Amino acid sequence: MKLTVSRLYKYRDTLIRFRQIGMVRVFSDDLAEDMNTSATQVRKDFSLFGISGNKKGGYQIHRLIIQLDRLLGKDKTHFVIIVGAGNLGKALMNYGGFEEEGFKVVAVFDNDPRKISRKGKIPVLPVQGLERFIKARELDLGIIAVPYFAAQEVAGRMTAAGIKGILNFAPVSLKVPGDCFVSNINVQLELETVSYFAKIMKENKKHSQQKKAL
Amino acid sequence: MKLTVSRLYKYRDTLIRFRQIGMVRVFSDDLAEDMNTSATQVRKDFSLFGISGNKKGGYQIHRLIIQLDRLLGKDKTHFVIIVGAGNLGKALMNYGGFEEEGFKVVAVFDNDPRKISRKGKIPVLPVQGLERFIKARELDLGIIAVPYFAAQEVAGRMTAAGIKGILNFAPVSLKVPGDCFVSNINVQLELETVSYFAKIMKENKKHSQQKKAL
Repeated sequence: MKLTVSRLYKYRDTLIRFRQIGMVRVFSDDLAEDMNTSATQVRKDFSLFGISGNKKGGYQIHRLIIQLDRLLGKDKTHFVIIVGAGNLGKALMNYGGFEEEGFKVVAVFDNDPRKISRKGKIPVLPVQGLERFIKARELDLGIIAVPYFAAQEVAGRMTAAGIKGILNFAPVSLKVPGDCFVSNINVQLELETVSYFAKIMKENKKHSQQKKAL
Repeated sequence: MKLTVSRLYKYRDTLIRFRQIGMVRVFSDDLAEDMNTSATQVRKDFSLFGISGNKKGGYQIHRLIIQLDRLLGKDKTHFVIIVGAGNLGKALMNYGGFEEEGFKVVAVFDNDPRKISRKGKIPVLPVQGLERFIKARELDLGIIAVPYFAAQEVAGRMTAAGIKGILNFAPVSLKVPGDCFVSNINVQLELETVSYFAKIMKENKKHSQQKKAL
């Protein structure tokens, strides 16, 4: 289910690119090719959400984007808080990519008094006020960018205050209530994994070169 | 295979935490519990890489960490380049988390002359010199943080110059030679997916509350 929803966002990105180059209609094959998937998968994904095309004419790009926008909640701005104003939190706070996609970071929280600041575009507030802030603004979305040992406590406080979706950058599995959805991104682990396989690729190459030299 | 390697890094993190609190030996059950997996899985993962414990005594933590370090290449520093000095590239450049794990970002490349700077701790260089830089330093690892439309070209140039592992932040599937490993992180897409499910969780709650009110 998570994968299907991810694909819907990717279809939308692709459709927006198609529209930019002047395309008006699209067939499931075109979308499939651009996304390295099959036309059957594209049609299945859309039909699961009640979106249907026309066998001869395909899908109208403009209409399809509107349908996806409504479905995916892209027709309004989503407010997000970040907990953790360390390297990662600051990076995310200054990351322009979220606003482009309709997300607005409204505040960052930290437990270090030296990091608190109300002067910037996005305020950094004391974590003591976290629950009150979430409840007062009826926020649903939180990003966790604290060290691993603090992540579970932050998740507990977020969900108790009403957060329903967490993007977790801390390298730890969070335990949350059934009415909250968590997605994990572990940047270090991804780089470590890439590094591991790069090492293997390099060693394999050396071996085959040594064989050739013999 | 990618998942197994990811787990090895996670085992290592957990073992380092165990050592910090004074533990000397560990059983597969302890590791399994901390990582939400099974003891059988832990033993299987280790045995795949020739690491074995003792049924009565478990694993020696110190020795296990050394074995994992060697296996995972954590016993030396890995040099990395980043292509793209936009919001994301800058964020990654200033992200302290990499150095903690033995990665050193040696240079960032961009095609925008206004972003070029040799003054900072990490130089931002013109992308024209990318291939020469990679070859001269025999680098294996690259991070792609450019817009989607430039990512494939960058990946092609990286791999042609000898890069064997790519961490790709651009929202596009890269085509690379068979001797290069790619891992993708799509931060926006993850936040969008979290937002989608948060919306559903919230709507479900509203419905059940309305039912109660009737």
